[in-house]
Amino acid sequence: MTQNIYDDPEFFEGYRQLARSVEGLAGAPEWPALRALLPVMHGLRVVDLGCGFGWFCRWAREQGAAQVLGLDLSEKMLARARAATADAAVTYARADLERLDLPADGFDLAYSSLALHYVEDLGRLLASVHHALVPGGRLVFSVEHPVYTAPTRPGWSVDAGGRKTWPVDRYLVEGPRTTDWLAKGVLKHHRTIGTTLNLLIRSGFTVSHVEEFCPTDEQIAAKPELAEERERPMFLLVAAGR
Amino acid sequence: MTQNIYDDPEFFEGYRQLARSVEGLAGAPEWPALRALLPVMHGLRVVDLGCGFGWFCRWAREQGAAQVLGLDLSEKMLARARAATADAAVTYARADLERLDLPADGFDLAYSSLALHYVEDLGRLLASVHHALVPGGRLVFSVEHPVYTAPTRPGWSVDAGGRKTWPVDRYLVEGPRTTDWLAKGVLKHHRTIGTTLNLLIRSGFTVSHVEEFCPTDEQIAAKPELAEERERPMFLLVAAGR
Repeated sequence: MTQNIYDDPEFFEGYRQLARSVEGLAGAPEWPALRALLPVMHGLRVVDLGCGFGWFCRWAREQGAAQVLGLDLSEKMLARARAATADAAVTYARADLERLDLPADGFDLAYSSLALHYVEDLGRLLASVHHALVPGGRLVFSVEHPVYTAPTRPGWSVDAGGRKTWPVDRYLVEGPRTTDWLAKGVLKHHRTIGTTLNLLIRSGFTVSHVEEFCPTDEQIAAKPELAEERERPMFLLVAAGR
Repeated sequence: MTQNIYDDPEFFEGYRQLARSVEGLAGAPEWPALRALLPVMHGLRVVDLGCGFGWFCRWAREQGAAQVLGLDLSEKMLARARAATADAAVTYARADLERLDLPADGFDLAYSSLALHYVEDLGRLLASVHHALVPGGRLVFSVEHPVYTAPTRPGWSVDAGGRKTWPVDRYLVEGPRTTDWLAKGVLKHHRTIGTTLNLLIRSGFTVSHVEEFCPTDEQIAAKPELAEERERPMFLLVAAGR
C-alpha cells in the first residue's frame, strides 16, 4: 500500500500552505507546460490519479470535460476537494494507486500531477490505466525528475568557486528514497527516465512528448527564485497515447 | 560544420589508446546494452553515423548484414577503418553529420555510437535519417547523457561526509559545451533527454526503448572502477522505429 503521508497532520499542515495548494494550478510553475500537453477537454471522460484538493478536476470540468473522476489516498484531501466542488459531473473516490482497478474503456484522458513517484509498482498501474483508456485515449502526467529524487542527500551545494550545484549520486540505483519534506520519512520511489518510459512503452503506450520542466524567462522575471530550476530538472512531464 | 576534433593530433593520440579503440566493441562497457537494442542483422543494409575505426561496421557484417556504410568526419579514423577492413560489402565515406544527405529508403538500420552529441542541428540529422530508412527501419544510438554534459565543470566531487557526487548545474540551459578531454576545447552540444526524444518523435520516429546505461554486477566485479557509473548516468541509449 502506498504511504498515506498526505494524511499525516504535520505534512498536511505544510502542504496546504504551499502556493500550489492555496492558488491551485496557477501556483504550480510547471502547470502551463503540462497544460500544453493536454488535449481539448470538451466532452472528455477524465480520471485524475492523485487529485489532491481537486484543482485539476474542477479546471477540467470548466473546460468542458463531460465527467471527471478524482482519485486520491488522502481522506483529508478528498474532504477538501469535495467541499470545494459543487458539480455532479465531478466525483471523488478514495483509491490506492498501488492497487487501482478501473473499468475498461472508461476514460478518454488519464492525468496525474506529481503522484506517480509515490507508486512502487508503476508497471502495474500503467497497465491498469492503459486498460481504462479508450483506443486513442491519452495519458498526461508529471513526476519528480530522477535527478531530483536520486541523491542520498537531495539539496543544493555551493562549491569553492561560488557555483550552485545539485550533487547527484545513486542515479542508477533505483528504489525507495526516504526524505524529510514537510514531515519526516516521506517515501518516494526513484526511477530513471528510461525505466518510466520503457514501462509506458511495454504497457502499450506510444510516447508523444517528454519534457524536463524549465521555467520560462517570463516566469523567472515574475518570480526570480525560479531561476535555480534551470540548474537541475525538478519535474518530468510526459504525454503518451493509447 | 562539426568540429573535427578526432583529427586533432593530441586528441587522436589519446583516443586511439582508449580501451574502446584498442579492444573495439568489447572495450566499451555500454556495448552489451546497446547490442541488445539491435535487430537481427542478417541481410540488413546498415549505416553507421560516426563509425570511427569501423569496429561496429565489421561486427555488423560478421553478423550477416548485407551492406554496411560507415560515415565519419575524421580522415585519420577513416584511414584506419579502411586499413582494418577487407570486405567489399563494408564501405567508408567522409561525411559531416551536420550536413548529411542520404538516399531515400536506402537503409534498414541506422546506428550511431557516441557521435550525436557533436551535432548541433540534431533535428535536421534525424529528419535525414528518417528519410533514409525504409518503413519499419530502426535507429539505435548512444549519446553522452545530459547529466554528464550539462555541468559548467563536469567532474566528481567529494563532500564533507566522503560522499562522491556529480555536481549538476545548467541542466536546462541547452547549447554548446566546451570541455578539455584528451585535447583542449572539445565542443559538444548539450540537450536534455526530453529534447532528444521530442526531436525523434517530431521526425516521425516511434520511441521503442530508452536506457540510461548502468553497468551490471558482473561488469563491476570484473572491472571495479565501473562502480562509479551507478552514481550518475554517463550514456543515454535509444532505440526508435520508423
